[in-house]
Amino acid sequence: MTDLQELDKVINDRLEQNLNELAAFCAQPSISAQGKGMKKCASQAAEMLAARGFEVQILPTDGYPAVFGQRSGQTNATLLFYNHYDVQPPEPLELWESPPFEPTIRNGKMFARGVSDDKGHIACRLAAIDSFLAVEGELPCQIKFIIEGEEEIGSVNLAPVIKQYQDLLSADACIWEFGGVNDDGIPIQSAGLRGICYVELSVHTATRDAHSGLGGSIFPNAAWRLIWALSSLKSLDERILLPGFYDHVIPPSSRDLELLENLPDESIPWKRDYGLKNFLKDLAGGVELRQREVFEPTCTICGLTSGYQGPGSKTVLPAEAKAKVDFRLVPNQRPEEVLQQLRTHLDAEDFSDIQITCLGSNPPGRTDLDDPFLHLVVDTAKDVYGTPQLIAPLSGGSGPNHLFLNILNLPVATAGISYPGANIHAPNENIVIKHFLDGVRHTARIINRFAKIYA
Amino acid sequence: MTDLQELDKVINDRLEQNLNELAAFCAQPSISAQGKGMKKCASQAAEMLAARGFEVQILPTDGYPAVFGQRSGQTNATLLFYNHYDVQPPEPLELWESPPFEPTIRNGKMFARGVSDDKGHIACRLAAIDSFLAVEGELPCQIKFIIEGEEEIGSVNLAPVIKQYQDLLSADACIWEFGGVNDDGIPIQSAGLRGICYVELSVHTATRDAHSGLGGSIFPNAAWRLIWALSSLKSLDERILLPGFYDHVIPPSSRDLELLENLPDESIPWKRDYGLKNFLKDLAGGVELRQREVFEPTCTICGLTSGYQGPGSKTVLPAEAKAKVDFRLVPNQRPEEVLQQLRTHLDAEDFSDIQITCLGSNPPGRTDLDDPFLHLVVDTAKDVYGTPQLIAPLSGGSGPNHLFLNILNLPVATAGISYPGANIHAPNENIVIKHFLDGVRHTARIINRFAKIYA
Repeated sequence: MTDLQELDKVINDRLEQNLNELAAFCAQPSISAQGKGMKKCASQAAEMLAARGFEVQILPTDGYPAVFGQRSGQTNATLLFYNHYDVQPPEPLELWESPPFEPTIRNGKMFARGVSDDKGHIACRLAAIDSFLAVEGELPCQIKFIIEGEEEIGSVNLAPVIKQYQDLLSADACIWEFGGVNDDGIPIQSAGLRGICYVELSVHTATRDAHSGLGGSIFPNAAWRLIWALSSLKSLDERILLPGFYDHVIPPSSRDLELLENLPDESIPWKRDYGLKNFLKDLAGGVELRQREVFEPTCTICGLTSGYQGPGSKTVLPAEAKAKVDFRLVPNQRPEEVLQQLRTHLDAEDFSDIQITCLGSNPPGRTDLDDPFLHLVVDTAKDVYGTPQLIAPLSGGSGPNHLFLNILNLPVATAGISYPGANIHAPNENIVIKHFLDGVRHTARIINRFAKIYA
Repeated sequence: MTDLQELDKVINDRLEQNLNELAAFCAQPSISAQGKGMKKCASQAAEMLAARGFEVQILPTDGYPAVFGQRSGQTNATLLFYNHYDVQPPEPLELWESPPFEPTIRNGKMFARGVSDDKGHIACRLAAIDSFLAVEGELPCQIKFIIEGEEEIGSVNLAPVIKQYQDLLSADACIWEFGGVNDDGIPIQSAGLRGICYVELSVHTATRDAHSGLGGSIFPNAAWRLIWALSSLKSLDERILLPGFYDHVIPPSSRDLELLENLPDESIPWKRDYGLKNFLKDLAGGVELRQREVFEPTCTICGLTSGYQGPGSKTVLPAEAKAKVDFRLVPNQRPEEVLQQLRTHLDAEDFSDIQITCLGSNPPGRTDLDDPFLHLVVDTAKDVYGTPQLIAPLSGGSGPNHLFLNILNLPVATAGISYPGANIHAPNENIVIKHFLDGVRHTARIINRFAKIYA
């Protein structure tokens, strides 16, 4: 088999080249929520694969296309990388220290929108592949990529693609789009993802805004309708009030709790990084906080908008109000059930005037904690990080992993280049270049071991 | 006394000249909320008064200055005009059919920001004065002006000016800054104004936004805190829940109800103009609707802002949330009491984290319905409009009339050039030129009769 030392040498030698390619990739905006730069970025991803000898196909969807690539190797064992080329909106722009689409290296970090989520991970996979091609001239196993363009808007069109191209995407295992280390530099395996049901609630009470002096007592107010409807969704003690919402929730197993026990306590860095006085429910930290973090479903208001929002006062009565609301779901909740519960609840509470638009959804998905591929990824970390990955039984985030778990029937595991200070989805998104190197080395070791074991 | 025919002839002859002066006045932005063009506009107002032989003083305040002018006349009876030279922000600009600060005449109307509120009313008073100066060479009584620069931001610095310059401002009666006709062309007398207490409620739960996948279950959410706090302020049946809020409310008298009975039913034009299905509390119209419109205090959400408000989804947990809330107050509520009740209520409901910033306030103010000056203004309308003004016992809007009523001890009455389609505070603000002429003729008749009766 391949000499890991030789791979590492190539990885080090090619670092600048790979970072330059990553910077060029990040310089191309690809904001799926706003439809900016999507086509150009998909082409760029396709070219990056083609440059490594991958056969590339653009898979059309009802939204932005997915990029598929495959290259055969020394064995028929097939590893599938799932990634995405779209990024979050960069706003608020004024909080960026360097422009979001002008990648900048400072203090050992590269800053750019998407540099961690998820273009840096694509670059990481490619840099590992480069090392095999440089040392061996070929890949040790077959590798496939599916790089979608709508992860940041809820992978709304991915399911039909996965179903339609099931044969094309056939593989033995899947490496997920993200991964990385915690605050102490310890690599983490996320063995599952919560589900999500992301909705916009909107209400229109008139065809135009009114003067608040005229209408305040007698005209319906869209902002008030929205406030009252929202306040009916969750009580002050954080209990979500949709009838039936908790019916299918499976509590964590004793194995889950054991794994949570082994995870480091993040309460102090969280409090520091976010300037928090307290956590919800007065949780101090420890396994209770970690359990609540991931095994509790949520109803999060992500945005509110209505009426006058500028400086000073404007005496206006708004005709329209909107909220973005994100439900995170735990096993075995289903987003389509939550959507139905939401509609039923709002109607029952006399809020039929509140419109619901679903902006994206995924059910929760978990990899079997005994799956050998999961442990292959966990164990190969040791050679890079000095310790195997710690297994988080479920991650707080969401994604379409259920499609890979349940339709493609693949074990899914995480490995990557991120860390808690990466500011993903926020201003000053960044990667630590050392983490990038580590992630590439880990990815190379995963490929190497996978090719051997799954041959 | 002056021959009204001669005054009317001058008013007609000078119309173009007076409209040109109004257009030049409107071309000068004076947006107090944004601090744009204020000094230049104050100078322009001062020059317009000086051109009529008024002695002018600029009265400094802690904010934008007020312009004072006085000119003696044939008698010592003194009429005070209250007006303002500031205007509302012109946004949203894209909805203007001609630029807000490029006054344009089309279809018998002049369009510009401030052309009705309130520069057109200043021009109306001056055109009436011009007619006396042209016919008589002097004024029939003493006339004073106080033209402030902060009416659109709640007259926040007017009270100290009124108190400090009480002697300078001494008069026998006051004509208010606005007035005009309803949809049927019938002139309306607003014999009082509701009070206002306009606050911004804001909450910060962290130093930065978090990913909703991480923090949804365990981090406090500013938007939720705001939603819950707001929903504690008013129940679904429109009852305001601040303890003590209704304690000092005086219900309308039988005289008030009689006057409301005489007002035309506006329910159909309101429904049409605002596209309303229903009024609050299922009121169909009639005196009940009119009573609720003005004699009921309000708690109106004027604006909401938090987190992501763009298209599509962003999975963010907001660190900050804000609401603009406008309480309209009826006799004898006091804004300082409401502010205190709001703080006490929020603290009692465990919302000490919600900050309150008062952005402007005025107590309610009413002119005695038997005051002879009020009836002078009401009756002189007949010669212009074919009918005396209809008296609205209270108007839904607010303003600093209480300073003139209670500190200067003046009866305050309204007369002017506005109409329901004037779009004040909105795009395409306008006056009907015929209404301008009528307003000038009415103002001339008020001055004429006032000089006779108060001599």
